[in-house]
Amino acid sequence: MGQLRIRSALVTGANRGIGLGFVQHLLALPNPPEVVFAACRDPKGQRAQELQKLASKHRNLVIVPLEVTDPASIKAAAASVGEHLKGSGLNLLINNAGIVRETTLDNETLKDMSEVYTTNTVAPLLLSQAFLPLLKKAAKGSPGLGLSCSKAAIVNISSSAGSIKEVLLWEFAQCIAYRCSKAALNMLTRCLSMGYREHGILCIALHPGWVQTDMGNSVGDKAPLTVDASVGGMLKLLSSLSEKDTGSFLDWEGNVLAW
Amino acid sequence: MGQLRIRSALVTGANRGIGLGFVQHLLALPNPPEVVFAACRDPKGQRAQELQKLASKHRNLVIVPLEVTDPASIKAAAASVGEHLKGSGLNLLINNAGIVRETTLDNETLKDMSEVYTTNTVAPLLLSQAFLPLLKKAAKGSPGLGLSCSKAAIVNISSSAGSIKEVLLWEFAQCIAYRCSKAALNMLTRCLSMGYREHGILCIALHPGWVQTDMGNSVGDKAPLTVDASVGGMLKLLSSLSEKDTGSFLDWEGNVLAW
Ligand SMILES: NC(=O)c1ccc[n+]([C@@H]2O[C@H](COP(=O)([O-])OP(=O)(O)OC[C@H]3O[C@@H](n4cnc5c(N)ncnc54)[C@H](OP(=O)(O)O)[C@@H]3O)[C@@H](O)[C@H]2O)c1
Ligand SMILES: NC(=O)c1ccc[n+]([C@@H]2O[C@H](COP(=O)([O-])OP(=O)(O)OC[C@H]3O[C@@H](n4cnc5c(N)ncnc54)[C@H](OP(=O)(O)O)[C@@H]3O)[C@@H](O)[C@H]2O)c1
Repeated sequence: MGQLRIRSALVTGANRGIGLGFVQHLLALPNPPEVVFAACRDPKGQRAQELQKLASKHRNLVIVPLEVTDPASIKAAAASVGEHLKGSGLNLLINNAGIVRETTLDNETLKDMSEVYTTNTVAPLLLSQAFLPLLKKAAKGSPGLGLSCSKAAIVNISSSAGSIKEVLLWEFAQCIAYRCSKAALNMLTRCLSMGYREHGILCIALHPGWVQTDMGNSVGDKAPLTVDASVGGMLKLLSSLSEKDTGSFLDWEGNVLAW
Repeated sequence: MGQLRIRSALVTGANRGIGLGFVQHLLALPNPPEVVFAACRDPKGQRAQELQKLASKHRNLVIVPLEVTDPASIKAAAASVGEHLKGSGLNLLINNAGIVRETTLDNETLKDMSEVYTTNTVAPLLLSQAFLPLLKKAAKGSPGLGLSCSKAAIVNISSSAGSIKEVLLWEFAQCIAYRCSKAALNMLTRCLSMGYREHGILCIALHPGWVQTDMGNSVGDKAPLTVDASVGGMLKLLSSLSEKDTGSFLDWEGNVLAW
């Protein structure tokens, strides 16, 4: 299994929660990436203070402005990352930014459905398109056959709430827009895995567990998992994935989840 | 099994294709409904000619203007149907209206993703909300325990292209927005089945087969099924459904499809 060995990674929604955890853990790897791109929508703002502190200590951390619902912002981010990489590719794209609304069947609206879908489902698609040339470049530049996250990968942070079979914790939180968006994200992940296999890019949907973040704590006050445990588990898992795993839906411990 | 015995039904996207087929078959039942509401967005227009002809022959056919992406239009339709039903409920809501775009991973856009999602996924939710009072009324007014389509049901016309496990016919038509919208519609159907069970409403997602309609013919010229065969199969199937089937994903012949 071993550690993930990558030259570069980009994490969306990197200023807090699980996204910030990914950035911290990537920087702390025994063989850290040459560059970690931490994408967040307001790099100078109050909510990016942790990230700014981190950047002042780590020369391999680059903060990238990115509003994931804005196609122009996505294009600009891809261009700036491309310039920064000076001809080398991007190994790992982690589509982590996401939102939840605590809605029910009774009060769900067109507006909520659209906003949650745009952030949680459409953005990962547009980001995959925009970073495809850099991911392809990384795949071509990496030795070895087959797919792996050390070569080139798109990791979509999904949720067990997106399991159509299970509809978990329904009594607890209906969150229709969120469930629909994550089921659709799982479908997108499958489509990406089919389309990008020939480019040498592994694509996977991960459930991070129920994690102590603003989002995790908003749906009850008993989120059992620390960000460290969740992100540590996911990075260990990523290092172990191969060809056979592309297009699957796994949790932070590597368990296969039902669609 | 027997025939479907209902007093009222509403079909969206009823002016052509599978929707028009549902209207024709419902009117032709041995015990036809007292009223069939055929919802379409331009009742006076060129594309509703078949429906107008049909209405001139069938006094139990009522054409209702409905643009499914417009919440105000949905509310108006529910109000007018409610008035027409004069205190009795609606037994069957068939969410059939849908669109497809022949997009690929490379050229899919935010606009396509949003439009297809609004029509195929959000509209069935908003329609379910708007017609809930009438569906509840039908369930209460029907004799017998358990769920059935003769009592009260929401039928969402989904697609096998929405199967996340299978990603069928990928080489043939990627249609990312469509696949994501139908996977999300399947999730919505599960949520509706959980929430509306206590109201006595059966909720189901149906794949009509690959059918000879404008849509079916647009993705290749070899759609094998006639509208008659597909709709006949689905109506026979609906008449056989019970409590245990709510929240499932079946094709026109009754086969269970993978999520
Ligand atoms: N926590 C859990 O228990 C749990 C469980 C299952 C799945 N997940 C998934 O894990 C991912 C991360 O969740 P989390 O718990 O870390 O959530 P969080 O604490 O609420 O953080 C969400 C992150 O996404 C960013 N974001 C949201 N909308 C954005 C936009 N339009 N543009 C750019 N950034 C945006 C936020 O930035 P701002 O600070 O600017 O708002 C923030 O950095 C999500 O996809 C979530 O669905 C979480
Ligand atoms: N045909 C197949 O092989 C196939 C396979 C799997 C699933 N399906 C599903 O079956 C359903 C019916 O498909 P079809 O083959 O009959 O398609 P179709 O021949 O293209 O007809 C689509 C119908 O939906 C209506 N519609 C679309 N957008 C609407 C809107 N915003 N407001 C109101 N009405 C709207 C259309 O009205 P206008 O005439 O005004 O455009 C038309 O009546 C769809 O949900 C489709 O996804 C079809």
